[in-house]
Amino acid sequence: MDINHDLDRDIPVIDWEPHLAERTKSMESSAIRELLKFAQDPEIISFAGGLPAPDLFPIREVEEACIYVAREQGMKALQYSATEGYYPLKQYLADSMHKYGIPATPENVLLTNGSQQALDLIGKIFIDPGRFVLTGRPTYLGAIQAWRTYQGKFHTMRLDDGGMVVEEVGRAYEKVVQDSGRPPAYIYVLPNFHNPAGTTLSLERRIQLAEIATKLDLVVVEDDPYGQLRFEGEFITPICNLIPERTIYLGTFSKILAPGLRLGWIVCSESLMKRLIQAKQGCDLHTGTFVQYVANDICQRGILKPHIKKLIAVYKERRDTMLDALTEFWPEGCQWTDPEGGLFLWARVPESIDTERFLKEKALKEKVAFVPGIHFYPNQDGGTNAMRLNFTYAPPEVIVEGIRRLGIALKKELGQK
Amino acid sequence: MDINHDLDRDIPVIDWEPHLAERTKSMESSAIRELLKFAQDPEIISFAGGLPAPDLFPIREVEEACIYVAREQGMKALQYSATEGYYPLKQYLADSMHKYGIPATPENVLLTNGSQQALDLIGKIFIDPGRFVLTGRPTYLGAIQAWRTYQGKFHTMRLDDGGMVVEEVGRAYEKVVQDSGRPPAYIYVLPNFHNPAGTTLSLERRIQLAEIATKLDLVVVEDDPYGQLRFEGEFITPICNLIPERTIYLGTFSKILAPGLRLGWIVCSESLMKRLIQAKQGCDLHTGTFVQYVANDICQRGILKPHIKKLIAVYKERRDTMLDALTEFWPEGCQWTDPEGGLFLWARVPESIDTERFLKEKALKEKVAFVPGIHFYPNQDGGTNAMRLNFTYAPPEVIVEGIRRLGIALKKELGQK
Repeated sequence: MDINHDLDRDIPVIDWEPHLAERTKSMESSAIRELLKFAQDPEIISFAGGLPAPDLFPIREVEEACIYVAREQGMKALQYSATEGYYPLKQYLADSMHKYGIPATPENVLLTNGSQQALDLIGKIFIDPGRFVLTGRPTYLGAIQAWRTYQGKFHTMRLDDGGMVVEEVGRAYEKVVQDSGRPPAYIYVLPNFHNPAGTTLSLERRIQLAEIATKLDLVVVEDDPYGQLRFEGEFITPICNLIPERTIYLGTFSKILAPGLRLGWIVCSESLMKRLIQAKQGCDLHTGTFVQYVANDICQRGILKPHIKKLIAVYKERRDTMLDALTEFWPEGCQWTDPEGGLFLWARVPESIDTERFLKEKALKEKVAFVPGIHFYPNQDGGTNAMRLNFTYAPPEVIVEGIRRLGIALKKELGQK
Repeated sequence: MDINHDLDRDIPVIDWEPHLAERTKSMESSAIRELLKFAQDPEIISFAGGLPAPDLFPIREVEEACIYVAREQGMKALQYSATEGYYPLKQYLADSMHKYGIPATPENVLLTNGSQQALDLIGKIFIDPGRFVLTGRPTYLGAIQAWRTYQGKFHTMRLDDGGMVVEEVGRAYEKVVQDSGRPPAYIYVLPNFHNPAGTTLSLERRIQLAEIATKLDLVVVEDDPYGQLRFEGEFITPICNLIPERTIYLGTFSKILAPGLRLGWIVCSESLMKRLIQAKQGCDLHTGTFVQYVANDICQRGILKPHIKKLIAVYKERRDTMLDALTEFWPEGCQWTDPEGGLFLWARVPESIDTERFLKEKALKEKVAFVPGIHFYPNQDGGTNAMRLNFTYAPPEVIVEGIRRLGIALKKELGQK
């Protein structure tokens, strides 16, 4: 063998399968990531991604923060930093969580690469192969993907208009113990403006869940990316207020500042925090120093609150636009949720329509996209006539046009004119 | 249960152990991260961290790139983006790798959160519990930590002045098959200016390794964070030139631009790339969009090459300063490597000195820090009288003072005046 000077040669392909770990067989490409590719085609109106409106990004504020950070803090902001995260930002987040009803100090806060990393770290420290997680059906795609990687299994509970049907938790717990010989690793809850369902868990159900979790010694993962994007209705206390000792709370800058910074945070008990920090050290040493400094500067200058107000106003209008368009253009026999905040609503079409097939064969031809409901069912046992629609990415006139196109395709499918 | 309005109350502590996964027991806090905390105390001269010199960060260039990206590309740079990474940056890296002797196209490149994430992703897709990895002794701490998390085991081979003793690979492979019933997951190699040993693998050994790997169908992980920081001597072709079909090559911006951006990259065959992308989706969806745009702007403007030249000049001087100071201040019976590049040298003191104890009981009292050698031995079977010294972080006068302090402490320990 010798140095090979032909760098454009064809490289032989080896068979990687026998080399790979067992868990790698459980991995699959995420439907949501594949579908995000649609959003790239300018012809297609995509309700598929979980994308915030790019025209609302506080670009000038980010620029100003970058300049400040580079000039005043450059040597630190570009260096390695602590796994736990940048202390002033942790302090800001602890204060902000405190106002939100969560007992937090900077020591309870860990910065992550978006909430997705939080989901991964949680899977990493909790899930043995074959271990069950309790969750609603439907539930967030990214959580399914993260935990399937660790060969986790899912036992699901029904959702109704009030969110997860919490009274099913006790029975679900028993069933998991029966089937796997071990309690579930935790229960995963999206209490506010559920992704994909758009529903919100009432205070009564949160209290009921807190009581059951305490009784069963069950850990709660409270994923709350949209909690600060409430358009109307009363603020509801997070589960982490009720049982902070056993709740792992996830927050993110992705929906209130910008997802491209990849910044999220975990709030949990300090004794668990140690484990998460150990896991994170092995994953990436620490979250990007520079983006933490930039986010901190934006937070400290008080820009975030008025920015969130602006987001709420615009997103509320877009939600209303979508609801109106659904009423106007969609055929009889369809239903949808009416979320009080967040990014998504969940629509059901007549049972004769399989939304996965409908997407591929009809909707995409009409140049419109969504995520078929089945992808949000970890055991593929539902959602075949449902879809998730994002209402924050597209401007109102595009929303109307997209919903109109879907309405036409649905009517055709149902044999209506 | 009801809403709890006392947010500053004491939170009860639950017992997390019965909830955690088996693998979590294998996790431990990284010595290197704990030791980085020393670098925070301004009193202590730390040779412990793997830190680049902050006074050399191209701060103004980063600022300019941030301004450009915010103004011209803000809506895209702050949005979610593809797991694979930002295409123009992948293109730049493929070209740059090509010039470095590696057959790469943008499709062979995956952006990661620093090389540490690359190590984590590799562990995730390859390591079943109990599976062995072949590596040198000593070897990189972060790799040990990342792979121990997946319950990987390590079979190590001796290093001499020419790097890993490659002729031991065949026997090591056989031993692993014998002990575990399965071939090792891969062999991990740090060919250039080894961390911590400072040694470089000769071309002859690279070719020998490529031949053995091909014969045994063994995957090679080639970790090359410092390859572009060569102070002297001839460029040596990477292993990825010889056997690109079975080499996973890791590069990083941490040592040539800034670690605080958290940007690294993997080059490997497209068929394996798919698996890594699936794993990365579950981990964090994608690497930060904004920092990728910023790095790309810096790369495209041709700033990186002259910057690396500057780094080489300064780091070479610091290495020389450290070598001179070691000769001047250290007692008889000590030895050290003379690296042709990179960030570290490896020093051995007389066997009567346990460097771990010496650090805690003596060196820290003299206000100087290093990483004790034993931490780089995954099986704790060596390095007790060795230490890793970083020569890039501190300015020359501080290096002299730190080595002088260590010399005094060593002489005291040896009962010399």
